[in-house]
Amino acid sequence: MAAVTDRVFDLGNISGIEKPVSVQEPYKLASRNPNKKNTVIKIGNIKIGDGSINVIAGPCAVENRDQLISIARAVKKSGATMLRGGAFKPRTSPYSFQGLGEEGLKILAQAREKVGLPIVTEVTDEESLPLVAKYADVLQIGTRNAQNFNLIKKVARIGKPILLKRGMSSTIEEWLMAAEYILLEGNEQVILCERGVRGFDSFTRNILDITAVPIIKHLSHLPIIVDPSHAIGKWRYVIKTSLAAIVAGADGVIVEVHNKPKEALCDGAQSLLPEKLEVLIKNIKEIEGYVRNCG
Amino acid sequence: MAAVTDRVFDLGNISGIEKPVSVQEPYKLASRNPNKKNTVIKIGNIKIGDGSINVIAGPCAVENRDQLISIARAVKKSGATMLRGGAFKPRTSPYSFQGLGEEGLKILAQAREKVGLPIVTEVTDEESLPLVAKYADVLQIGTRNAQNFNLIKKVARIGKPILLKRGMSSTIEEWLMAAEYILLEGNEQVILCERGVRGFDSFTRNILDITAVPIIKHLSHLPIIVDPSHAIGKWRYVIKTSLAAIVAGADGVIVEVHNKPKEALCDGAQSLLPEKLEVLIKNIKEIEGYVRNCG
Amino acid sequence: MAAVTDRVFDLGNISGIEKPVSVQEPYKLASRNPNKKNTVIKIGNIKIGDGSINVIAGPCAVENRDQLISIARAVKKSGATMLRGGAFKPRTSPYSFQGLGEEGLKILAQAREKVGLPIVTEVTDEESLPLVAKYADVLQIGTRNAQNFNLIKKVARIGKPILLKRGMSSTIEEWLMAAEYILLEGNEQVILCERGVRGFDSFTRNILDITAVPIIKHLSHLPIIVDPSHAIGKWRYVIKTSLAAIVAGADGVIVEVHNKPKEALCDGAQSLLPEKLEVLIKNIKEIEGYVRNCG
Amino acid sequence: MAAVTDRVFDLGNISGIEKPVSVQEPYKLASRNPNKKNTVIKIGNIKIGDGSINVIAGPCAVENRDQLISIARAVKKSGATMLRGGAFKPRTSPYSFQGLGEEGLKILAQAREKVGLPIVTEVTDEESLPLVAKYADVLQIGTRNAQNFNLIKKVARIGKPILLKRGMSSTIEEWLMAAEYILLEGNEQVILCERGVRGFDSFTRNILDITAVPIIKHLSHLPIIVDPSHAIGKWRYVIKTSLAAIVAGADGVIVEVHNKPKEALCDGAQSLLPEKLEVLIKNIKEIEGYVRNCG
Repeated sequence: MAAVTDRVFDLGNISGIEKPVSVQEPYKLASRNPNKKNTVIKIGNIKIGDGSINVIAGPCAVENRDQLISIARAVKKSGATMLRGGAFKPRTSPYSFQGLGEEGLKILAQAREKVGLPIVTEVTDEESLPLVAKYADVLQIGTRNAQNFNLIKKVARIGKPILLKRGMSSTIEEWLMAAEYILLEGNEQVILCERGVRGFDSFTRNILDITAVPIIKHLSHLPIIVDPSHAIGKWRYVIKTSLAAIVAGADGVIVEVHNKPKEALCDGAQSLLPEKLEVLIKNIKEIEGYVRNCG
Repeated sequence: MAAVTDRVFDLGNISGIEKPVSVQEPYKLASRNPNKKNTVIKIGNIKIGDGSINVIAGPCAVENRDQLISIARAVKKSGATMLRGGAFKPRTSPYSFQGLGEEGLKILAQAREKVGLPIVTEVTDEESLPLVAKYADVLQIGTRNAQNFNLIKKVARIGKPILLKRGMSSTIEEWLMAAEYILLEGNEQVILCERGVRGFDSFTRNILDITAVPIIKHLSHLPIIVDPSHAIGKWRYVIKTSLAAIVAGADGVIVEVHNKPKEALCDGAQSLLPEKLEVLIKNIKEIEGYVRNCG
Repeated sequence: MAAVTDRVFDLGNISGIEKPVSVQEPYKLASRNPNKKNTVIKIGNIKIGDGSINVIAGPCAVENRDQLISIARAVKKSGATMLRGGAFKPRTSPYSFQGLGEEGLKILAQAREKVGLPIVTEVTDEESLPLVAKYADVLQIGTRNAQNFNLIKKVARIGKPILLKRGMSSTIEEWLMAAEYILLEGNEQVILCERGVRGFDSFTRNILDITAVPIIKHLSHLPIIVDPSHAIGKWRYVIKTSLAAIVAGADGVIVEVHNKPKEALCDGAQSLLPEKLEVLIKNIKEIEGYVRNCG
Repeated sequence: MAAVTDRVFDLGNISGIEKPVSVQEPYKLASRNPNKKNTVIKIGNIKIGDGSINVIAGPCAVENRDQLISIARAVKKSGATMLRGGAFKPRTSPYSFQGLGEEGLKILAQAREKVGLPIVTEVTDEESLPLVAKYADVLQIGTRNAQNFNLIKKVARIGKPILLKRGMSSTIEEWLMAAEYILLEGNEQVILCERGVRGFDSFTRNILDITAVPIIKHLSHLPIIVDPSHAIGKWRYVIKTSLAAIVAGADGVIVEVHNKPKEALCDGAQSLLPEKLEVLIKNIKEIEGYVRNCG
């Protein structure tokens, strides 16, 4: 997808009563220093943070070769720009499916080769980090490790782009401070990911903090994407929430997709069918065009 | 603003794993019964719930005649469709400005006459209800009275349209049950208003639950608007969040506007300047056009 | 139950790093001004706020004469000092039992006459206030009306003692500001009631904020009691949590009791059987004795 | 401190409307199977889980030898049974003091030798685990690693007792599932620690979930202690909240103590002075005596 200029929605220059972000923010490197341009992250042919919209899609977990290749083809066909899938799964219960491990990473690599999409997958601990780093294009740090600073630092030192999810009860400041740990290691390739925070209404899995998008854009030069699947927990509301995230200024979304949601080994209830993913991306392209044309 | 068809974003028909809303929902009248059309509310020349986008704008409180008339003119000029302003203010502190009372209502009526916009204002208790009902076009029930069922029933019986804010820690179901109290009184003119719920991050005043918009559209036939001003508490993030709400499917937004935010008697920090309101509405119109054209 | 000196647990005088409460607190009348003694409220023969421990018990709702008289006798026999019971019930659903209204108040008055316990019952709106005020010894303002300032002021003017529940998402300061509305009307007879706040874990109905007890004792001269029944929602954990509240410094507890919890028209799951109430009070008396003896 | 029988407070046998815990709970090993006795953990001469009350005290961080030895002596003199102190500190900001590392562990070992108290200290990552395991008597897993399952499993395999803090937004079930990961590794020596969960009122650092104590005692055979210091964030309310925790059924408390709170490198505001710790322990002994005597 093509670049979107910031002109339409960049309304920050009209005078108001708030002060600009101070360089005295506790997140010195992550803060929007006036002399600092937006960080743009390159992953193969795609860019995140340059104004283009990226859709990252795939199953919660790699379950087997057929499942992943089949979904990867649908993801590619839909126009998404990156493939997601978990090989190491941090699960609340030790009795739940824990992922295929290296076998899952190998399947992800095969899918990348077949369909030509870069892959993002989660790294859950120091021990498997070298393995995950060998296969992944983007290393994801999940919500349960969002303040696991030792892991964060070690992942940073790999030098690959990092998808840093917000902790499930992290404040905006705590989240930016976690990013600061990465930047301090000399790795600037941080993609922030809003994935919902804990709320009191069990109708949704979490509560998506949409305002985090313009706030992060105001406070920081780092790109931000949104994960509506984990925020909501129900596929039915994923598309409109995704579109809202894009209009709020997000650099993209990461959504869960499954060809057989009812048989998924995890997160079936929040997974889009491939045809829904196509609808989502069609809608995003239309909004993107709108934004560009009237800029 | 013209009507927007539901076609583009109405993605609910593609098969998935969730069931349709059952008529056994505890909110029998508020639920989206298959035979029930979307409720459309008429207020003067405007309609809410027919697919058009309404922007309701105005100051937190009516402070004096000059302030309100001046803001009302700016609101009218911007293209907003309704004027908001509080005459009776429920304030956390008894030492804060409590509103002008009937004097405020009279000023609102004068503004309506001068600029031709219907007015929405809050009713805070049974005693002042007859007075507020005499002047207001839409009666607002605030977040602190969101489960004050006796007041809700009495307001319902007035027979005018009601703007029902979500309680600051109400679940979706509790909110729809509050609406059910109104519907049971035979008044169907209920506009739900998502205004943020209590969260743990004091950077924003509340946390806006954007997903409530598609959820309400799925579960109920009632229109829903969004109040980003109270949700966020900082004007800077109001515009993008408003646009996100529209794209998520909201029937409109209600925003606070003040010509001199720094001198406002309440909520100055979250009030847009009139020129920002114009930018917001210009952006909304562009999105609206997009949605209509590609439907 | 006899008075407990503050000596053992009054540890506030040993030097530390926090400052004493300032009279510049926003709750001017509710704050612990150094020259202000603890407020002691007299209701018939009982006192709240003098160091004694009061147990208020009874059913969620008055269901019929037999039920209430039977429970009232058990409550009296157990050693509790006041009877609770709802005649006007604010219910989330309009289809739930809404209370017996004046008939319920009359039954409460009969129970008072029969067993000799003062009664506390909720007032839910201005319309029924004169009626409730005619029968009740203590007027309860429920959590849904905790920021219904107009009702609060009108109840204050009745001049009877008020049980002011904490709003389900009120901060400590917001709660004290609500009390301030009462004090400003010239009524000092305010009993604060911690009843749990909204949390994210649906295992309990709310989350009891036990630390609110020593905080209120530090910040204010008003008495505070704890309602573990509504906080927890499950009778099984009510006794130990009640004892914890007493040791934390509460002036008492208010608990729900029912002789047939499975048949209760509301809140059966959180209601103690009468024999459990006896166990609770026996335990409280033992703790009370301990506290007095080692003072 | 001597053993306290469970008789007084064990009220679970009186019939009620809840069912006993089922062995079908998702936490199979952590659940209170009827044939399973309470787990008792031995650390040197002390036992946790046998009904005795343990007080674990010490500074947030080991700052230098003099500071720690001085505090350790005060802790020992007060009657506390274990010494706490952080050598590896997970800090929100990378610019905050991160702990002395192995030097801190060595100082802790010296303090143990000097005063004869076992030491509990946090392990923050796999890399430093062998080092921490070499020095610590109890390995603490902090709130930020409460769902870091890979670290949890590796710590479990060390075979030493583990202090497992509740995640800052973990439900009761999620917390027990984290314990399940440890039990599945064959290590039963798990001490659960309630340390407050995220809340909306910034007056306190977190909100202490006191009811978690009787809930855990009902659902599980594992011991539970309470950390009021981190829950509250202000020393002034630590003592009464600690006493409440004991009466609620906790096997002990862990509190932060510092001889110069104003100069502490972390958490000074929530640290008790040594003389306050003595008051706390004097009060706990009195409550313990009461509980034993009236059993």
